[in-house]
Amino acid sequence: MRQMGKSDEEIAREAGMLPIEEVAAKIGIGRQALELYGDYKAKIREDRIEGLAGRRDGKLILVTAISPTPAGEGKTTVAIGLGDALQRLGLKSAIVLREPSLGPVFGRKGGACGGGYAQVVPMEEINLHFTGDIHAVGAANNLLAAMIDNHIYFGNPLGIDPRRITWKRAVDINDRQLRSIVAGLGGNANGVPREDGFQITAASEVMAILCLSENLAEMKERLKNIIVGYTRDGRPVTCGDLKAHGAMAALLKDALKPNLVQTLEHTPAFVHGGPFANIAHGCSSIKAARLALKCADYVVTEAGFGSDLGAEKFFDINCRLFGLKPAAAVVVATVRALKMHGGAALEDVGKENLDALAKGFPNLSKHVENMQKVFGLPAVVAINRFPSDSEAELDWLAKKCEETGVKAVRCEVWAKGGAGGEALAREAVKLAERESRLSYAYDLEDPIPVKIEKLVRRVYGGKGIEITAQAEKAIEKLERMGCGNLPICVAKTPYSLSDDPKKLGRPADFTVTVRDVKCSAGAGFLVVFTGDVQTMPGLPKKPAAESIDVDGEGRISGLF
Amino acid sequence: MRQMGKSDEEIAREAGMLPIEEVAAKIGIGRQALELYGDYKAKIREDRIEGLAGRRDGKLILVTAISPTPAGEGKTTVAIGLGDALQRLGLKSAIVLREPSLGPVFGRKGGACGGGYAQVVPMEEINLHFTGDIHAVGAANNLLAAMIDNHIYFGNPLGIDPRRITWKRAVDINDRQLRSIVAGLGGNANGVPREDGFQITAASEVMAILCLSENLAEMKERLKNIIVGYTRDGRPVTCGDLKAHGAMAALLKDALKPNLVQTLEHTPAFVHGGPFANIAHGCSSIKAARLALKCADYVVTEAGFGSDLGAEKFFDINCRLFGLKPAAAVVVATVRALKMHGGAALEDVGKENLDALAKGFPNLSKHVENMQKVFGLPAVVAINRFPSDSEAELDWLAKKCEETGVKAVRCEVWAKGGAGGEALAREAVKLAERESRLSYAYDLEDPIPVKIEKLVRRVYGGKGIEITAQAEKAIEKLERMGCGNLPICVAKTPYSLSDDPKKLGRPADFTVTVRDVKCSAGAGFLVVFTGDVQTMPGLPKKPAAESIDVDGEGRISGLF
Repeated sequence: MRQMGKSDEEIAREAGMLPIEEVAAKIGIGRQALELYGDYKAKIREDRIEGLAGRRDGKLILVTAISPTPAGEGKTTVAIGLGDALQRLGLKSAIVLREPSLGPVFGRKGGACGGGYAQVVPMEEINLHFTGDIHAVGAANNLLAAMIDNHIYFGNPLGIDPRRITWKRAVDINDRQLRSIVAGLGGNANGVPREDGFQITAASEVMAILCLSENLAEMKERLKNIIVGYTRDGRPVTCGDLKAHGAMAALLKDALKPNLVQTLEHTPAFVHGGPFANIAHGCSSIKAARLALKCADYVVTEAGFGSDLGAEKFFDINCRLFGLKPAAAVVVATVRALKMHGGAALEDVGKENLDALAKGFPNLSKHVENMQKVFGLPAVVAINRFPSDSEAELDWLAKKCEETGVKAVRCEVWAKGGAGGEALAREAVKLAERESRLSYAYDLEDPIPVKIEKLVRRVYGGKGIEITAQAEKAIEKLERMGCGNLPICVAKTPYSLSDDPKKLGRPADFTVTVRDVKCSAGAGFLVVFTGDVQTMPGLPKKPAAESIDVDGEGRISGLF
Repeated sequence: MRQMGKSDEEIAREAGMLPIEEVAAKIGIGRQALELYGDYKAKIREDRIEGLAGRRDGKLILVTAISPTPAGEGKTTVAIGLGDALQRLGLKSAIVLREPSLGPVFGRKGGACGGGYAQVVPMEEINLHFTGDIHAVGAANNLLAAMIDNHIYFGNPLGIDPRRITWKRAVDINDRQLRSIVAGLGGNANGVPREDGFQITAASEVMAILCLSENLAEMKERLKNIIVGYTRDGRPVTCGDLKAHGAMAALLKDALKPNLVQTLEHTPAFVHGGPFANIAHGCSSIKAARLALKCADYVVTEAGFGSDLGAEKFFDINCRLFGLKPAAAVVVATVRALKMHGGAALEDVGKENLDALAKGFPNLSKHVENMQKVFGLPAVVAINRFPSDSEAELDWLAKKCEETGVKAVRCEVWAKGGAGGEALAREAVKLAERESRLSYAYDLEDPIPVKIEKLVRRVYGGKGIEITAQAEKAIEKLERMGCGNLPICVAKTPYSLSDDPKKLGRPADFTVTVRDVKCSAGAGFLVVFTGDVQTMPGLPKKPAAESIDVDGEGRISGLF
């Protein structure tokens, strides 16, 4: 997403970093609570922060966005810039973000550390291995997988039905070749043949568990509860039955500790946990959120994709489960992306087109409604400005927002860092002063189909759901198993409010097809599969990896 | 391998660790050259060590062993204890070891950090993720794999023959289910169906490249040269053709930096790189060896399994390539293991049995001959003492060694730490004073079959080789491709000097079957596959993982 002469890496390299001890000290985290990973990354030992429990929680601001388009929205960039702007206003602020997965880094999207003058650093390290958390999730995931097949190989005393294993292997790379495989071939010394498949690590239930666990003991319990498959007579087989949870928890013990880094303006940033928002729950870890709220007066966090995905899951799963009370929401939009929602082609988004902007506006308007009316939060629109936006477009958009009951603020954090986000910060602080009360989109007691239907009608703006025969059977079974009262995590295309990625703007009158429902008993939610969403992405024709390089001095390029 | 009341974890926990800065300072590495990973692990930036290039190299002592048996030898334990003992003698010593793979940790063998009072610490972290190097190797390996299949998926302009792809995916878990798979199933949106398979990460050519690269630029060049498969008309397709080497090098840039930890007695220990010795080259990184030699007066390193595997590869590949000059060799043996080589059953190795000991002795004697006569190094036998060893057995063994021209020293480092290794240390220092000149087992100019045959006759003690038709074709092709002058890396069972794991002791008159030969053009060696060695291990019936646990305070147990 380059617009100027300098690449993100160049900007990041030129900005000096503070030693991470100094960044931590800003929010009352002493050296003794830091486990250093080099000079600029640390894991936090909360048990070693003095007086943490007695501190008052800060205010939580959630950054969400319109439905993404190839024109780019910059949600992470705005979240980072907003955190920097709050710091510039003299407020004690912190940012909470998800960790990048290698899949998008090497695939189409590139890095996920913001951009321009609103970045978290060291961006190369955060984008690549960081502190190893995602590798730990993958190892724990694949240890369990190996133990399942090893159990079957050695006589299968638990009676696992090899055709009904729901646990998949994982790899943190976009690798479509592994979506559907037959493994265990090569004769009887080499396993037991069965159909299998890989998902990307960010979609693993282990990632969700890491993000939803408050401590090590609870995480181990959640791991134990994972359902890996079923016996021939339909009884669930768990991770605990295979005695894998202890070793998995051992693999994950350090990954559970939140990571601290900094922005280019040295605002503390917690980057921890990385579930995708289309195929998983899309929120960074509860531990990082809780810790940030104890340490800062204003905490900016983001949830993946549009309000129909990450934000919805943040409210209906995370906030409900852990009693988080967001004070305000920021909805990020760009003129370019709205024009695409209004029918403009990607190559034309740089040209003024008020007509397309007006046609695309309802997408933004629905996401704002979700914040204000469905979830009951004060909201502001951040217009993430691009050089190609015309004054006429920017004015029209701000005015139109005003008419529909939401203030829109221009935001130039990409080009100017925190200075470009001060107006947004002031508005967010104002909104956060108001009394607000979070509503949920559905009740936990609703039957499973009602939960899904409420989401579709209220949050997506559709007219109802169609449930396939397979999903029908799965729902019946899950209700019988006593999982009916869990929150739901919908796997859905991010590109449309509907389940059809081609329906841009604000589609109406659509139904969402529920293909299957699966119980993530460890994470504590039901995964609802819609459309033909894949839990393993593929690389594009020209993967970003082809342009990534490192020179002899260790300077990385191409992680735009 | 517990013999007393305390587990290795308990012993490790009770021993206080020094901050890694203090350990580094012992061998002239200042704080500015450390990238900390917590308080007790660091990666070393050699470019920031003052005056490194001008330092004189220390003396290199290689620790090898008899052919392993289930009774245990304790090669790593002896290497660590020897390093501690050298320090106790007032010498500036350092230890260089391979990093443990999760495969054995969760499989049969348990951790790989030594044992008893001769351990490297923090053992839990070293055994699990450590500084993430093996994860980085796996990610780089699998990125390349995904890019190969992605290339084919998008029209295959390079004309890669899907039936002749030699690059495998990797996972750092013992997972036999993945040895042989068919991937790319599920219709034309999901890749192109072909036979494929996974190997364990420790067997990956990327691991070998990491261990054999002197700097980042050279590593990238080696990655570029990897042969991933062939076109239909037999031309090799490289990693460079797929433009994957830059991104892979970016993933590996930090992994290339040596890791520093400490022993229980605070001797500096470099733990870096972890190729298995049966299916890969079995030696820790050349960077760690070089750095240790510049920093310490005595450097103790180990190579995997018996002298027929790790040690042979250390001499014929590493020392030849990088001009390393080992000063002496230690051959580790146990009375128990020799009795197994002499026909005793595992359950009986605790009972005195001089007859079995005498029958098993020739295994030790061949490994000593390899050191002294084949490679021309002064050698000492370390008898790693177990409580069940009788005085009669220990005396007989020492006397028998003496008769065959090698001194044998009792070693009690497991029970006593460095104090139990002082006699061994004194003998090693004495040997290292002598002038020695390393010989190689074969010449690089030898034709491929001659190299293999020389190894079999001279190092394994067999009478010759049989080459299958497939291997014959492969050898012809490799000679034509100009790879004939590379050193060879034999994949062979470690349990026997022959290629048949059941032939214990010192087999004679055997031939070794060469099944296939593959070119690791990036690593710079030819892999010779013998017997039915698997590059992907399986878990045992009761995996060690079932007994591994972590409590609410993060204390790990079961990593014996």
